[in-house]
Amino acid sequence: MPRPTTKLLSPQIIVDAAIRMVDSTGDFTMPGLAQRLKVRPSSLYNHVSGRAEIVELVRAHMMSQIDLTVVADAPWTEVVTALAREYRRSYARHPRFIPLFTSHTVAAEAAFGMYNALASAFAAGGYPPEQILHAITAVDSFVLGSALDLAAPEVVWESGPEANDAMRAALATSAPNPERADAAFEFGLDALVAGLAARAGG
Amino acid sequence: MPRPTTKLLSPQIIVDAAIRMVDSTGDFTMPGLAQRLKVRPSSLYNHVSGRAEIVELVRAHMMSQIDLTVVADAPWTEVVTALAREYRRSYARHPRFIPLFTSHTVAAEAAFGMYNALASAFAAGGYPPEQILHAITAVDSFVLGSALDLAAPEVVWESGPEANDAMRAALATSAPNPERADAAFEFGLDALVAGLAARAGG
Repeated sequence: MPRPTTKLLSPQIIVDAAIRMVDSTGDFTMPGLAQRLKVRPSSLYNHVSGRAEIVELVRAHMMSQIDLTVVADAPWTEVVTALAREYRRSYARHPRFIPLFTSHTVAAEAAFGMYNALASAFAAGGYPPEQILHAITAVDSFVLGSALDLAAPEVVWESGPEANDAMRAALATSAPNPERADAAFEFGLDALVAGLAARAGG
Repeated sequence: MPRPTTKLLSPQIIVDAAIRMVDSTGDFTMPGLAQRLKVRPSSLYNHVSGRAEIVELVRAHMMSQIDLTVVADAPWTEVVTALAREYRRSYARHPRFIPLFTSHTVAAEAAFGMYNALASAFAAGGYPPEQILHAITAVDSFVLGSALDLAAPEVVWESGPEANDAMRAALATSAPNPERADAAFEFGLDALVAGLAARAGG
């Protein structure tokens, strides 16, 4: 096999390598990516402007897998619920990328599809602009935390002597994953959206 | 300066080094920690059993900074709200550790202080055990996502042509951090706890 040359590079190849690197190590660097792709670091810069652009390309890739049409014409609370489900499903595939997404400004055009849909839903629910931003952030935080929870180990909490009676009884009901994480997500999403609906137009 | 010997190691020194390493690189390895502490990897194992124990020591360190007495004798919804605030405040200091926490089983005795307090609060609210586990998970997910949001850049979303009218109006209201993140957290927490309260005893 000849050593790959920079001709074989593309933004998509760089994105795929960054995802694999973050999946296994929690982060990526330009020199590390270059080493993984067997190219010089300078070759990467023929395709991307740097680390921030790669994060945005990965975000666009994840967001492009969110179906924004799932509940067209449904009541706004159902739109929010459906978007949150899609969002979690997509982001749970690469949970270790989540802190990189949250530490970079959202610039990817593809990301705005979902945020626009959420903003329109909350506007339809009678929210004023400032509360729309808060409500989007609340859904964002809950979904990203839930995506991390879906990647949790089979046993989330060790049920030892440290657990009090209420906690021990709760732990005894825990189902295997992904059932446990899915049920908790649906329960929490239902509560959050109900709470947001009770504040709509207020 | 003489090179430090293994005599200078302690679990606390190892924990501090792991926190610094994760803050800067998103992960830690036993060889990487050893290199950072200028000891042999085998020396680390005189103090900790491995990576999982270090994650639990760090979790215990973070949880030990949560004041569990803030709202003794308050209504259960206020207890949940106060615990969520304390939990976010502590975890937001080292946001890149969050995916390591969520990917390891909770075993630290110090962690159960908070989970026990949450479980008791939901039990006081009339929740059956299965729903207590879901409610704790929902609060956990929302808090961890919100801790990541607190570490977000000053500009979370670029307000460009991609934003629709509702999103652009929402973005125009955005305050600087930490005010933006704090306001969104309080808004979302209020909605989530209200939604959970509406489901209590159901």
